[in-house]
Formats: sequence, structure tokens, C-alpha cells
Amino acid sequence: MTTLVGRQARVIEWGDCDPAGIVFYPRYFAHFDACTALLFQQALGETQAAWAARHGVIGIPMVDTRAQFTTPCTFGDQVVVESRVAAFRRSSFQVEHRLLRADGVLAVEAWETRVWAARHPDDPARIRGVAVPAAVVAAFG
Amino acid sequence: MTTLVGRQARVIEWGDCDPAGIVFYPRYFAHFDACTALLFQQALGETQAAWAARHGVIGIPMVDTRAQFTTPCTFGDQVVVESRVAAFRRSSFQVEHRLLRADGVLAVEAWETRVWAARHPDDPARIRGVAVPAAVVAAFG
Amino acid sequence: MTTLVGRQARVIEWGDCDPAGIVFYPRYFAHFDACTALLFQQALGETQAAWAARHGVIGIPMVDTRAQFTTPCTFGDQVVVESRVAAFRRSSFQVEHRLLRADGVLAVEAWETRVWAARHPDDPARIRGVAVPAAVVAAFG
Amino acid sequence: MTTLVGRQARVIEWGDCDPAGIVFYPRYFAHFDACTALLFQQALGETQAAWAARHGVIGIPMVDTRAQFTTPCTFGDQVVVESRVAAFRRSSFQVEHRLLRADGVLAVEAWETRVWAARHPDDPARIRGVAVPAAVVAAFG
Repeated sequence: MTTLVGRQARVIEWGDCDPAGIVFYPRYFAHFDACTALLFQQALGETQAAWAARHGVIGIPMVDTRAQFTTPCTFGDQVVVESRVAAFRRSSFQVEHRLLRADGVLAVEAWETRVWAARHPDDPARIRGVAVPAAVVAAFG
Repeated sequence: MTTLVGRQARVIEWGDCDPAGIVFYPRYFAHFDACTALLFQQALGETQAAWAARHGVIGIPMVDTRAQFTTPCTFGDQVVVESRVAAFRRSSFQVEHRLLRADGVLAVEAWETRVWAARHPDDPARIRGVAVPAAVVAAFG
Repeated sequence: MTTLVGRQARVIEWGDCDPAGIVFYPRYFAHFDACTALLFQQALGETQAAWAARHGVIGIPMVDTRAQFTTPCTFGDQVVVESRVAAFRRSSFQVEHRLLRADGVLAVEAWETRVWAARHPDDPARIRGVAVPAAVVAAFG
Repeated sequence: MTTLVGRQARVIEWGDCDPAGIVFYPRYFAHFDACTALLFQQALGETQAAWAARHGVIGIPMVDTRAQFTTPCTFGDQVVVESRVAAFRRSSFQVEHRLLRADGVLAVEAWETRVWAARHPDDPARIRGVAVPAAVVAAFG
């Protein structure tokens, strides 16, 4: 478990919610994707566009994700998402998110496995995982 | 495992895709949500608005979902999503989706646990699972 | 022109962008919708859920909107959206948004006509505009 | 006015709708974007990825769009979107959409001004309009 923990305050918007008045769950994944990007920005000290260009990668596409929705959220809710990298492997890594409501109740937990990915040198249409640089791993503590 | 299998032909759209040119993964969940709704419509012979009103429920909110992304899809790809209910429990059920590209390659697999949910009689702001009617279970074979 | 001006700092996310690497324009409208909600929250001093319940309305659905996209934005861009109500009519009102990049360049302008809307008393499936309360108009200066 | 008219049957999904139970209007723009792409695919006889590569363009980004929302749609509604190119200019063109409910009622009208756009030869981060090829214009009749 790395030591860096991102904490993002976010507001649930009307457009995040469905006719039942609660968050349409794909929108939670969009929030988590943004939180992972912000965690990397915090760790690496530059935006995704900058670190992706510096390292010659296209980004950190998802290969496996799961979320458990315990308590519904609705528009206007101010939530906090706590995010951290649970483990780095050679070319992949795992991220965990905990989304808490303002009253401290855990609403959603999510787990991600992503790859540090580059275009294939022989075929730019293909994407492949490449080794996560040691400096990137170190930046997460 | 129920016997009814839904098969939905869908097209990946430009707006489903991200700057890497592949599907932004939260959009897969939006596709799967639509496929579950269509599977229920196929089984129950009426739209979600109709069967939800008939049974006095607000819908089938997600409590747990996971997806594995094996092969990227891009805009213009014609895909097929095969969906089925894997098991019914008292007030919850599990759905499985397999998203196949036109070349037959399995691109994404997803698993859902949803609840058959109604407004709480004492507090309409709360949602709770209620027993899935036997007729609903039977409709899936 | 009312005097209250909302200023929202927002970040363009990876998931807002398309395969050309720029914002998928429907996502701008989602940002503007959130900014209008925040402007009303700022003016009325409570969340949309609260003021909608207080006034017996369902919200402020859009009847006409236009946007001009002058300069592209990409993920990681920190933008500011300036929003104000241009005019109130009996049951409708007009909102204007200006989205500025961090370098001060105007990227998008948008205009909205919305209605102050309630469920029809004889048919809850129908929505109709009702008179904007004087206290609401006054709150915008 | 060109003569080619696209007609797309689409279904309004649960995830297209907001807590008022009607379509969250940014989702209409996503539908219209897909309909414009399908209109070009129909006219040019190949997918956007194919014609964009053939012509050396990145796509047809939006510069100005407007929509009027006359009648609400809700999840499960089967709608038809009629789309056509109203006019071609040197490097831009105008598209019109009419979204009709199953009962024939016009629900939404939209107008788009888009550009036929390529990366700037001196700076790939910039996008600029280039002349629409005569063969493209001719394909719309």
C-alpha cells in the first residue's frame, strides 16, 4: 500500500442522477476516473497531458474495475473521494476509492486495475502495457 | 442460471470514446445498464416505466458491479451485448454481460448485483429492496 | 440584466474529451447545467433539492439553448465559467455563460432559456411553467 | 438544402434521464452527434474513422449549436431523428435534426454548424477548418 492519499471534494450534480433521484452509477465511475487522474497529478506534480507526454504513454486505461454502492447519493450532496494506489506491479497497478457523504457515511467503494500503456511501436492502433517507471512508483510513497 | 438471453446490437459512438480513441469505460456501464433494461423489457413484455408502475417499484438500482476490459473498442465498432440473469435471490439478482466485437472477439465482461427496489413506506427518500415477484422470476425461464 | 454573477472554477477531465482530444461538446452543456444550478444555489441560499421543495417545483428544465465554441479545451485545463441570469419573464428566464480558459481566452459562450416548472395538477406526467416567485427574481439583484 | 435525409430510430434510456424523469438535455446533444456521424457514414459509405483517415481530417467539430425542447421525452420512448445537411460552405456546414416521438409529436429541433477540420501542419495541438472536398458535398445530393 502506497502512502499518498488523495482527497477530492466533489458535488453530486443534477445531471449525475437518474429518474429515481439517485446517482446513475456509471457517473460514479466518471468521478473515480477523475480522482485517479488527480491522484497522479498530485503525485507527479504535473497534469496527465504533461506526464503522459514526458513518459511516452497514452495514459492509464482500465482493465478491471469493481464498485459497491452501499448508500445512495443525490444531487447537491457534497462528497469526498479518498483515493490511493494499493499496489504497483510491473506494468499495472491497483487503485482504491472510498466515496464518503458529508455525514461521513461510506456511500461507494471502488477498486481499479489499470495499465501504464503506450502505443504499440509496430501498430499505433494497438495499445500495450509497459513497465511503470521507478520514479513514478516512488512518487506515491 | 436463467435461460433467457438478450442480444443487443449496439454501435460505439464518437462520444463514447476518450482522447486515447477507445471507449471511456464509464460509457460501457451505461451500455450495460441499457442492456439490462432491455432484457427486463424482453422478459416482462413491457417497458421499465410500465413494469415498475405495475409492481410498485422504482427500478433495479445497482449495488455491486464489476467489469473486465480485455480488448479495446473504438467509434464505429458494431458490437453485440449478450445479457442474462445469472441468479435471483429474495430481493436481489445477478446479471452477466458479454460484449463482443463484430469479429467475435470478447471485449468486455461485466457482472451486476441489483435490487428490486421500492420507496420506503415510512420515508419516501429512502429506497429498500423488496421481494422479487415469482412471476418476474418465472419470466426469465 | 440581473447583477448576481456566478464564477465557477472547473477542471476539464479526460472523460469530458473525445478522440480528437478536445471536449465532447455535450459535456460543455453538462458543465453549464451545473453552473446554472450553482448560480441558483448561490442566489437562493440553499440547494436545488431544498428550493425546489420549498417552492413546489420540479426544477428549471431547458426549453432552448445555444452555444458557440470558439477555442477548444482539453483535459487538465482549468477553466472558469461566469454565469448570470440575463432576464426573467413570467415563468421563464434566460441564463448566459462564458467559459474562459486559464489564459483568459473565451472558449465557449452559451445562452439558455429555462422554465420554472411544476407538475401539472391534473396529470403528474405533464410539466408546465409556473410564475417565477418575486422573491426568487429579487434574489438575483 | 441537400437532399439526403438520415432517419435514425433510437430509444431513450434510463441513463439519459434526470430526476424529473425526462431527458437530461446534454444527452440529446450526444444523440444528435451520433446522428450526424451516421448521416455522414450513410452519405460517404464508410465509417467516420475510415473517411477521416481518407481525407486527412480529425473529424467535424462543432462551432455553434442550438436546440429547442418542445415536448419532454422519457426512458423507454422510441424516437426517430431526421437529420440533413442544410448547407455547405467552404470549410463549414450546417446540420438540422428533428427528433420525433413515436406518436409523431416533434420533441426537439436542433441546428449545428460544424467544420471540416484538420490538425494544423505547423502545430498538431491546433485544429483548423479546411475546404470540404467537392466529392463530400456531392455525396449529400
